[in-house]
Amino acid sequence: MDKFMQYALEEAHKSFQEGGIPIGAVLVRNGVVLGRGHNRRVQENSPIFHAEIVCIHNAGRIKTYENTIMYSTMMPCYFCGGAIIQFGIPMVVSGETFHGSGSRDLLRSFGVTIEEYDFKECISLMNSFIAKFPEIWQEDCGVR
Amino acid sequence: MDKFMQYALEEAHKSFQEGGIPIGAVLVRNGVVLGRGHNRRVQENSPIFHAEIVCIHNAGRIKTYENTIMYSTMMPCYFCGGAIIQFGIPMVVSGETFHGSGSRDLLRSFGVTIEEYDFKECISLMNSFIAKFPEIWQEDCGVR
Repeated sequence: MDKFMQYALEEAHKSFQEGGIPIGAVLVRNGVVLGRGHNRRVQENSPIFHAEIVCIHNAGRIKTYENTIMYSTMMPCYFCGGAIIQFGIPMVVSGETFHGSGSRDLLRSFGVTIEEYDFKECISLMNSFIAKFPEIWQEDCGVR
Repeated sequence: MDKFMQYALEEAHKSFQEGGIPIGAVLVRNGVVLGRGHNRRVQENSPIFHAEIVCIHNAGRIKTYENTIMYSTMMPCYFCGGAIIQFGIPMVVSGETFHGSGSRDLLRSFGVTIEEYDFKECISLMNSFIAKFPEIWQEDCGVR
């Protein structure tokens, strides 16, 4: 696991400690972190704050996403995949697909480069959350 | 134009008056408005607040999107289309496709019912904004 995925995992742990869904994301360009964030559905009581979306928010209005990489502790769902396609983020590094392949095939069909892993740290953190709060997981990324 | 598209257009006008991108959206179920909103990229200085996303935020954690309809003054982009797919919103009514067909074909491929119009009120409001602020439009929905 490289340092950017470690940062994403740190974000996921932060969310878990806050009682939220433990998914983290980091946006990187040329080795520089542009933004990081974690899922805040529970914390903000809103469905829109997926990890990758919060990460894009925290990166701000950067004008272009050329040469950026979105690291996420799990494969982005269709919502986050749609954002990656719309904003033109050319690459995704995913920490696990054990809990679903998300929008992987769609991202590929739009030419997004995918690097995927099944890091046991990412899988076991999600497992801990799902065991505790199955309904919240179902409410969020469990739809598809 | 039915009353829900009129509400969406009211939201778009609100945004225009605030100096923001004039796109509005309304989420409806069985004739009841669950949420409404407008693009807030400029107002919040963040790329994530597209009209449909703000509308989903304002509707809150409604658990299921069964039988909902997303009205938008323009065809949803891939970001908003991804949200519609992920959350399982079964129908979209679009006010115009003159400024781009957005994620229409993708939405259709996921079984979303699309009803599309080219209302001159929606087109001319966008035209007014693009003429004034072409870079902001390009920064937001103009990528794809």
